[in-house]
Amino acid sequence: MTEAAKTARDSLTEMTELVLPQHSNVLGTAFGGTVLAWMDVCGAIAAQRHCHRVAVTAAMDDVSFLAPIRVGDLVILTARLTAAFGTSMEVHVEVKVEDAQTGHRTRCVDAYMTFVNIGEDGRPSAVPRLIAETAEDERRQREAQARREARLARR
Amino acid sequence: MTEAAKTARDSLTEMTELVLPQHSNVLGTAFGGTVLAWMDVCGAIAAQRHCHRVAVTAAMDDVSFLAPIRVGDLVILTARLTAAFGTSMEVHVEVKVEDAQTGHRTRCVDAYMTFVNIGEDGRPSAVPRLIAETAEDERRQREAQARREARLARR
Amino acid sequence: MTEAAKTARDSLTEMTELVLPQHSNVLGTAFGGTVLAWMDVCGAIAAQRHCHRVAVTAAMDDVSFLAPIRVGDLVILTARLTAAFGTSMEVHVEVKVEDAQTGHRTRCVDAYMTFVNIGEDGRPSAVPRLIAETAEDERRQREAQARREARLARR
Amino acid sequence: MTEAAKTARDSLTEMTELVLPQHSNVLGTAFGGTVLAWMDVCGAIAAQRHCHRVAVTAAMDDVSFLAPIRVGDLVILTARLTAAFGTSMEVHVEVKVEDAQTGHRTRCVDAYMTFVNIGEDGRPSAVPRLIAETAEDERRQREAQARREARLARR
Amino acid sequence: MTEAAKTARDSLTEMTELVLPQHSNVLGTAFGGTVLAWMDVCGAIAAQRHCHRVAVTAAMDDVSFLAPIRVGDLVILTARLTAAFGTSMEVHVEVKVEDAQTGHRTRCVDAYMTFVNIGEDGRPSAVPRLIAETAEDERRQREAQARREARLARR
Amino acid sequence: MTEAAKTARDSLTEMTELVLPQHSNVLGTAFGGTVLAWMDVCGAIAAQRHCHRVAVTAAMDDVSFLAPIRVGDLVILTARLTAAFGTSMEVHVEVKVEDAQTGHRTRCVDAYMTFVNIGEDGRPSAVPRLIAETAEDERRQREAQARREARLARR
Repeated sequence: MTEAAKTARDSLTEMTELVLPQHSNVLGTAFGGTVLAWMDVCGAIAAQRHCHRVAVTAAMDDVSFLAPIRVGDLVILTARLTAAFGTSMEVHVEVKVEDAQTGHRTRCVDAYMTFVNIGEDGRPSAVPRLIAETAEDERRQREAQARREARLARR
Repeated sequence: MTEAAKTARDSLTEMTELVLPQHSNVLGTAFGGTVLAWMDVCGAIAAQRHCHRVAVTAAMDDVSFLAPIRVGDLVILTARLTAAFGTSMEVHVEVKVEDAQTGHRTRCVDAYMTFVNIGEDGRPSAVPRLIAETAEDERRQREAQARREARLARR
Repeated sequence: MTEAAKTARDSLTEMTELVLPQHSNVLGTAFGGTVLAWMDVCGAIAAQRHCHRVAVTAAMDDVSFLAPIRVGDLVILTARLTAAFGTSMEVHVEVKVEDAQTGHRTRCVDAYMTFVNIGEDGRPSAVPRLIAETAEDERRQREAQARREARLARR
Repeated sequence: MTEAAKTARDSLTEMTELVLPQHSNVLGTAFGGTVLAWMDVCGAIAAQRHCHRVAVTAAMDDVSFLAPIRVGDLVILTARLTAAFGTSMEVHVEVKVEDAQTGHRTRCVDAYMTFVNIGEDGRPSAVPRLIAETAEDERRQREAQARREARLARR
Repeated sequence: MTEAAKTARDSLTEMTELVLPQHSNVLGTAFGGTVLAWMDVCGAIAAQRHCHRVAVTAAMDDVSFLAPIRVGDLVILTARLTAAFGTSMEVHVEVKVEDAQTGHRTRCVDAYMTFVNIGEDGRPSAVPRLIAETAEDERRQREAQARREARLARR
Repeated sequence: MTEAAKTARDSLTEMTELVLPQHSNVLGTAFGGTVLAWMDVCGAIAAQRHCHRVAVTAAMDDVSFLAPIRVGDLVILTARLTAAFGTSMEVHVEVKVEDAQTGHRTRCVDAYMTFVNIGEDGRPSAVPRLIAETAEDERRQREAQARREARLARR
């Protein structure tokens, strides 16, 4: 069954995570890897909402952690589809950290991730088209295309 | 330090959880208790966003599970402050389940939960006032007051 | 296969949990939701011991947390069948907290939970009759019937 | 503060665990190590109930797994103090597996474990005397003494 | 399909674990049971590398914990096949703890574990022969044989 | 205390992980994020072995997943320091997946990660010099320097 085209709003995903002792090192700072794992789940959910099948992680572009995350903080993740290519999707995942005492939010890390749509036969399967609703959406798709070419060139 | 009064929008919390095998029984159905634990975290975050201190669970009103949740489904939780009383807050937590294949969302369970604001001395501490912005907010506060009286009467 | 009638003693369940850092907030107090999740597992085990099939959580009546639980404490849960109705069972789950240093036990929270027996076809299936052995058992069944009617009326 | 002498009944500990997919290998059989970890927690709780301080695992005698444990089964652990020596305690931990479908219990594994009482200064600290209430208790203490001598000889 | 004979080097397994708050008691000391669970996984991997099927834990000889393990420490596990008998394998698992601040490694605990090779029909299945490459390997096999006889005699 | 210079061999880290159901989606394929989290722990351990303090993740260069990882597979991670700069370290983390049935190893993913050494005051602190033992080590340090400049330019 071919899925109808969709907009980025259709798959927008928001997750909130509370940082617990098990997510942190002896200084009480969250492991970068815990945050990367949350980003992967958030991005995979957005991709699955677009293709309605299981989306498997194919790549993550480079990431920099701009702010520390501590036990007791909230981590707010947002994932948004930026482009759909053949059997894959690019998703932008953004992470903010919210200080529990002040409510102040800081941008912490973001990444462009690529997910592949896996069909019932376990092989890559075509994804629905992504409709650009605004000029901003169009710009995002063009930039995603450029990142994709850079990724293929790096191999 | 006394916190300024806030609106329900200030503490609105949304969480998305992906149901994994570890959350489910041998039939692949999520444990009710896993969902209750997610509801508690979601409600506690909303309460902490209101009081900017640690909020401890004091009570949960009765809940009914209206729809099964399966491995691979998404669970979307929303928590909203309905009233602030002295040192406690009532939070409404609503759970929807989203079928991964169809994207169809079903209302699954909801509850009114009460959290107590714990100060630096480990004792209940006064919470900021909740501003009613709309007639709907006012109605919610009146109903919360009635539920509170029923809760106190049940003891 | 129809199961023979059973007594409440046949499904009595006791669980002991040690509270670890991963179960607690930054104050070292256990999350209410962790305790609710343990109560659900304990109640589900009692229900499964009665029906010998998977028992799925249908409802939890209102709960109040009477005492805080801290990292290092022991949590003792006891679940006891109070009534069997058609395809569902009511289970009373009681939680005590035991201070590790003094051994002193405090009643912390209790709830009446309802579980549905799920048969091989994934649908509700008839449960064995619950035999009342004592006058106390009879009183429990009458009270469970009254709670059940109140639950149905609340819908 | 010196603790008063206690009986084995004072520290008797029962735990019930439900075997989940995360506890098992690809065949759906529980990892032996998961069961050993549960035995350690159960034994440590019994030891802590005797000494009212943190009890640290010092040794576990040899164990044999007599029956497989599968996802969906219940594991029932019982720990009982057999002897108190200077700063250490011997605890017998016994594991039964209960088939969820039949309720049939099978003895699965048992072990004699040794725990050391750790005082506030982080060093081994004297434990309360264990009172033998019956001839059976006396026999257990004599056998524990023999096992202890064998353990010391093995070093 | 019969597997070709292999050497101990073919199945040598090394694991490194970072001790987190969730692995420890209130003193920040790792639970003995957590270490036993890691030993079981490490030994099972070595056994599976020898037989290329699922290896199930059958027995663990007695263990003594010689040094405490603290949150923040590294735990280094090494597993080595010592003998292959009919359908079972003996594996020696050794645990060292590495102090994060000094890098100093201390021998902490070791054990001889027995795993059974489970075939596709869920029953014990013949394992490949273990080739002794050195006189040391031959000595290990002879000692493993003696331990095996002692284990059988203890039943 | 200033740490003496060290070689890449001093901090070489190897981890082995067994892929369990809780690490995987409904197709039985490991989440990319689980692998990223393991890579982060492995890299952080190598960095901590170099600086003997807590190492916090600052960046991860782009990654591509070349092969799927399934429940039951083994994941072998190796981390190696490639350069030490002022208060940070670059670590190369490589992941291979080993098929449990055949023992065949496939290169799955690798990344260059940057960790910052955090001192007792919670601020970045100087790291020991990395000694190049071979021409290969020298080449690695030159390439690390080039990647570092590219990273700074991307900001």
